[in-house]
Amino acid sequence: MRLAELSAETGVAIPTLKYYLREGLLHPGRSLSRTQADYDESHVDRVRLVRALSEVGGLSLARIEQVLDVITDPGTDRLHVLEAAQRTLARSGRPGEGDEGVSTDRVRAWVEQHGWEIDPQDPFLDDLALAWEACDHAALGLDEERMSRYADHVEGVAAVDVGTVPADPEGAVRHVVVGTVLVDPVLVALRRLAQQHVSRRTERVGT
Amino acid sequence: MRLAELSAETGVAIPTLKYYLREGLLHPGRSLSRTQADYDESHVDRVRLVRALSEVGGLSLARIEQVLDVITDPGTDRLHVLEAAQRTLARSGRPGEGDEGVSTDRVRAWVEQHGWEIDPQDPFLDDLALAWEACDHAALGLDEERMSRYADHVEGVAAVDVGTVPADPEGAVRHVVVGTVLVDPVLVALRRLAQQHVSRRTERVGT
Repeated sequence: MRLAELSAETGVAIPTLKYYLREGLLHPGRSLSRTQADYDESHVDRVRLVRALSEVGGLSLARIEQVLDVITDPGTDRLHVLEAAQRTLARSGRPGEGDEGVSTDRVRAWVEQHGWEIDPQDPFLDDLALAWEACDHAALGLDEERMSRYADHVEGVAAVDVGTVPADPEGAVRHVVVGTVLVDPVLVALRRLAQQHVSRRTERVGT
Repeated sequence: MRLAELSAETGVAIPTLKYYLREGLLHPGRSLSRTQADYDESHVDRVRLVRALSEVGGLSLARIEQVLDVITDPGTDRLHVLEAAQRTLARSGRPGEGDEGVSTDRVRAWVEQHGWEIDPQDPFLDDLALAWEACDHAALGLDEERMSRYADHVEGVAAVDVGTVPADPEGAVRHVVVGTVLVDPVLVALRRLAQQHVSRRTERVGT
């Protein structure tokens, strides 16, 4: 298909597609002439992926480029690749954002006490420290015990995540990165709905 | 304390504090003279709350204003107030974002089959439909069965949320709104860490 058809198929404007091509977010089409190229389903998939990561995942284009790099060059060791893929998503790894020197001592102590096996350099420890500190500032009463109760339920979510990762390396990396980003909003919406369900049930029991 | 001390205490610049005062995000201090006012701990708390909602929660100032309105005028009926408070957070309610006509039929059918008691007009149904559709576009294989497995674990998270809501109405609304926004990043970080823990355990079992 031509660029105009790719645009119609994906709902993304032609100038935006040209921008994706220039920035390497979209691989070039098969050249037909000096000014025309042919695009296929792989381009449709890629454009949809970029849009989803940007609009639903809220990632910047620079961030999406990193994610796509990991997807298209997955390397060798499965576990390391999956962890590297995941690490591109850490908030504290984003330029201009991040920990600003928040201490991870409390988080490390909690992780150890909770029994999770985590790389001590994992950037998500910084993310967790930052998010926990914000809850403290808002006096939400989020202590170690409540953190562990959350963690037990979230471990169930993660087991579903890990259990659905495909076996082939490229598919696995794609699934981890894209699945992590795109399933977050699903879980956020589910949490709100579950809160409503649980509090309606609780209030009815209470009256 | 004076405005300069409030600034030092919260790490927020004086022009930003003046902006918060003008916009009503921060309540006025006790007037000492035509140009000076006295601020107290309630101002420190409020400024920290606004920063947390903005930086960690990612809410716009307009959105934060809505949230603060709900917190400071909690009305009467507890359950309705809590649901109204929560609703201010719906993605699909945000101007310029939202569903763009995404169908909620599949989500409604799934919710009913899953047995959750949810207001059929709840905007989080739109959020879930939108997030689910994005996963479909990325071919993540998120079907009804996996959604239900996620939902069961998330219901555990929501039970922790609801169980820690304070009894007084103002505290409850504050806790629901602020807790929902600020605990999201905690859960996101926990999910990444739990994925690492679960996949390390799984890979070790597999070798």
